[in-house]
Amino acid sequence: MKYIGAAIAAGFAALAAAYGNGKVISKTIESMARQPESAGSLRSMMFIGVGLIEAVPILSLVIGFLILFM
Amino acid sequence: MKYIGAAIAAGFAALAAAYGNGKVISKTIESMARQPESAGSLRSMMFIGVGLIEAVPILSLVIGFLILFM
Amino acid sequence: MKYIGAAIAAGFAALAAAYGNGKVISKTIESMARQPESAGSLRSMMFIGVGLIEAVPILSLVIGFLILFM
Amino acid sequence: MKYIGAAIAAGFAALAAAYGNGKVISKTIESMARQPESAGSLRSMMFIGVGLIEAVPILSLVIGFLILFM
Amino acid sequence: MKYIGAAIAAGFAALAAAYGNGKVISKTIESMARQPESAGSLRSMMFIGVGLIEAVPILSLVIGFLILFM
Amino acid sequence: MKYIGAAIAAGFAALAAAYGNGKVISKTIESMARQPESAGSLRSMMFIGVGLIEAVPILSLVIGFLILFM
Amino acid sequence: MKYIGAAIAAGFAALAAAYGNGKVISKTIESMARQPESAGSLRSMMFIGVGLIEAVPILSLVIGFLILFM
Amino acid sequence: MKYIGAAIAAGFAALAAAYGNGKVISKTIESMARQPESAGSLRSMMFIGVGLIEAVPILSLVIGFLILFM
Amino acid sequence: MKYIGAAIAAGFAALAAAYGNGKVISKTIESMARQPESAGSLRSMMFIGVGLIEAVPILSLVIGFLILFM
Amino acid sequence: MKYIGAAIAAGFAALAAAYGNGKVISKTIESMARQPESAGSLRSMMFIGVGLIEAVPILSLVIGFLILFM
Amino acid sequence: MKYIGAAIAAGFAALAAAYGNGKVISKTIESMARQPESAGSLRSMMFIGVGLIEAVPILSLVIGFLILFM
Amino acid sequence: MKYIGAAIAAGFAALAAAYGNGKVISKTIESMARQPESAGSLRSMMFIGVGLIEAVPILSLVIGFLILFM
Amino acid sequence: MKYIGAAIAAGFAALAAAYGNGKVISKTIESMARQPESAGSLRSMMFIGVGLIEAVPILSLVIGFLILFM
Amino acid sequence: MKYIGAAIAAGFAALAAAYGNGKVISKTIESMARQPESAGSLRSMMFIGVGLIEAVPILSLVIGFLILFM
Repeated sequence: MKYIGAAIAAGFAALAAAYGNGKVISKTIESMARQPESAGSLRSMMFIGVGLIEAVPILSLVIGFLILFM
Repeated sequence: MKYIGAAIAAGFAALAAAYGNGKVISKTIESMARQPESAGSLRSMMFIGVGLIEAVPILSLVIGFLILFM
Repeated sequence: MKYIGAAIAAGFAALAAAYGNGKVISKTIESMARQPESAGSLRSMMFIGVGLIEAVPILSLVIGFLILFM
Repeated sequence: MKYIGAAIAAGFAALAAAYGNGKVISKTIESMARQPESAGSLRSMMFIGVGLIEAVPILSLVIGFLILFM
Repeated sequence: MKYIGAAIAAGFAALAAAYGNGKVISKTIESMARQPESAGSLRSMMFIGVGLIEAVPILSLVIGFLILFM
Repeated sequence: MKYIGAAIAAGFAALAAAYGNGKVISKTIESMARQPESAGSLRSMMFIGVGLIEAVPILSLVIGFLILFM
Repeated sequence: MKYIGAAIAAGFAALAAAYGNGKVISKTIESMARQPESAGSLRSMMFIGVGLIEAVPILSLVIGFLILFM
Repeated sequence: MKYIGAAIAAGFAALAAAYGNGKVISKTIESMARQPESAGSLRSMMFIGVGLIEAVPILSLVIGFLILFM
Repeated sequence: MKYIGAAIAAGFAALAAAYGNGKVISKTIESMARQPESAGSLRSMMFIGVGLIEAVPILSLVIGFLILFM
Repeated sequence: MKYIGAAIAAGFAALAAAYGNGKVISKTIESMARQPESAGSLRSMMFIGVGLIEAVPILSLVIGFLILFM
Repeated sequence: MKYIGAAIAAGFAALAAAYGNGKVISKTIESMARQPESAGSLRSMMFIGVGLIEAVPILSLVIGFLILFM
Repeated sequence: MKYIGAAIAAGFAALAAAYGNGKVISKTIESMARQPESAGSLRSMMFIGVGLIEAVPILSLVIGFLILFM
Repeated sequence: MKYIGAAIAAGFAALAAAYGNGKVISKTIESMARQPESAGSLRSMMFIGVGLIEAVPILSLVIGFLILFM
Repeated sequence: MKYIGAAIAAGFAALAAAYGNGKVISKTIESMARQPESAGSLRSMMFIGVGLIEAVPILSLVIGFLILFM
């Protein structure tokens, strides 16, 4: 049961991070192609956004590792 | 059963945070690309929004840790 | 069974809050970018809305904690 | 089985309230941004709507508490 | 099994009421913002509609209470 | 098993009635806002429609009560 | 097992009737609002349609009753 | 197991008939409202269509009755 | 297990036939309303199409009957 | 278990054939209504397409019969 | 268990082939109706495409037969 | 359990290949109908794409055969 | 249990690779048909993209082989 | 149970990486075809994005390997 638990926590974290990052980054690329002059501002915004999004999935991964080694 | 419980709580929290944040941040980036002159106001709005969204998922993560260590 | 119950209550609360808040806040940011002159009115409206939305998910979290410590 | 029951009742109530409120409030904010002159009428309408929507989810939460303490 | 039954009846009732009411009320608010002169007629229509929609979910809640106390 | 049966019958009835009524009533309100001069005809039509829609869900609720008290 | 069977038959019948009727009636109301001069023809068409749609769900309800009392 | 079988056959038949008929009839009403001069031809077409659609669901209902009384 | 098998075969056949026929017939009615002059050609096409679609679901029904009486 | 297997193979074959054929035939009818002068070419194309689509579902039905009589 | 395995392999193969072929053939018919002058090129393209799509589902059918006769 | 494993691996491979190929080939046909002058370049592109897409599903089929004969 | 594990890992890898590649390649073909002059740049981009996408599914396939031969 | 866990972790990682990368890369190709002059900036952006997206799925794969060899 331990292995299934770790797999669910890690798998959902992967799905969540990929969904959120994919949405933000593809929107950033689309906007940069339309307004190349504000590329710097959008890029720094994207890094903040990716950091905020990945916080919770990475904690979920940590729980997955904890389940595995406990 | 304990491990599955912690994994569900953490996995759903990750999905929820990524969904909500992804939506808000991608909308912010899209709006900033259209109105670069109101970027500051939108950015501060986004931080408030991300804070409000992540409150409940982080409590759900806390429940996941509690399940794990109880 | 106790752990699964707490995890379901917390996980669904996280999903619900992230879905509702994400919708309201992204709509607010979109509207603020279009009408910067009514930003104050929209921002206060958003705080009321977020408060109303988070009431039930937080009660669901409370049930999750109650299940855990009972 | 008792814990799962309470969790389902509370979780579905949270999802329902967040879905209904999120829809009404985001529509209200969108309409207020378009017609700022009818903001008062829309705001009072929204409070009535939120009250009507939250009636049944809160009763479902009550059932969740009843299941937990019975 | 009794607790699960009550939880399903109450949870589905909450989802149903929130879905139906959310749809009707958000449509009413949208229509009121477009035609402010027919706000009274729409508002009275909405109250009738909400009453008609909530009839069956509330009966479902009653079944939930009956299951719980039988 | 009896309780689950009653809950399924009642819950599906609630979902069905809320879905059908929500669709008809929101469409009626939208149409009334566009053609205020034909409001009377639309309103009487809506009552007929709601009556026709709620016939089968209410019979399903009756089956739910029968299951419960048999 | 008997109760679950009756509940499934009745619940699906309710969902089916509400889905079919909701679609037909909301389309009728929308059409009547656009062409008020052909309201009579559309209304009689709707009654035929509702009758044709409800034939099979009502037979499914009959099976539900048969399961219950057999 | 017999009761569940009859319920699945009947419930799916109800869903199928309501889905197919709802689609055909609502499309017919929409077309009649646009071209009132070809109403007769469309109406006769609709009766043929409804007959063709209900053939298989009614046979499924027959299987449901056969399961019940065998 | 025999009854469930027959019910699945019959229920899926009903769903399949209703989905396919509903799509073809509603498209035929829509096209006939737009081009009344090619109604004959479309009607004969529809009968061929309905025949081709119903071939496999009716064989699935036959399997349902075979399961029931074997 | 034998009966369930035959039912799944037959039911999925019915769904697959109805989905594929419904899509091709409704598209053919739509195209014929727009270009009546190329009706012959489209009709022969459709027969080829239906033949290609039904090849695999009919083999799946054959597997269903094989399961039943083995 | 053997029968279920063969049914799953055959049923999924049928669904896959019908989905892929239905998409390609309906798109071909739509394109042929718009550009009748390039019908030959599109038709030969379609046969190549159908051949490429059906390769894997037919191998899946082969696995189904192997499971059945092994 | 062996048979189910082989069936899942083969069935998912079939679905995956049909989905990916169907998407690429239908898009190629659509593009060829719009720009007949670049048909050669698109056709060679399509063969590369189909080869890249089918690589992984065919390896999944290989795993299905390995499960079957091991 | 070993066989099911290998099948899930391989099947999901096939689905993932087909989904990702199908999306990228069909978008490339669409873009090449619109801008034939930048075909070379897009084609090299596509190969990089396909390589990046297939990295993780191929590692998942490797896990599938490892499960099978361990 | 160990094998299923590794398969879920690897399969979800594959799905997540393919979904996120597919979205970002197809959007990049689309943007490059529209603005060929900003291809360099978009390409470097894409590599950063792909790196950020694949971080969590690759950690999930690592968990899959850990489950397998522990």
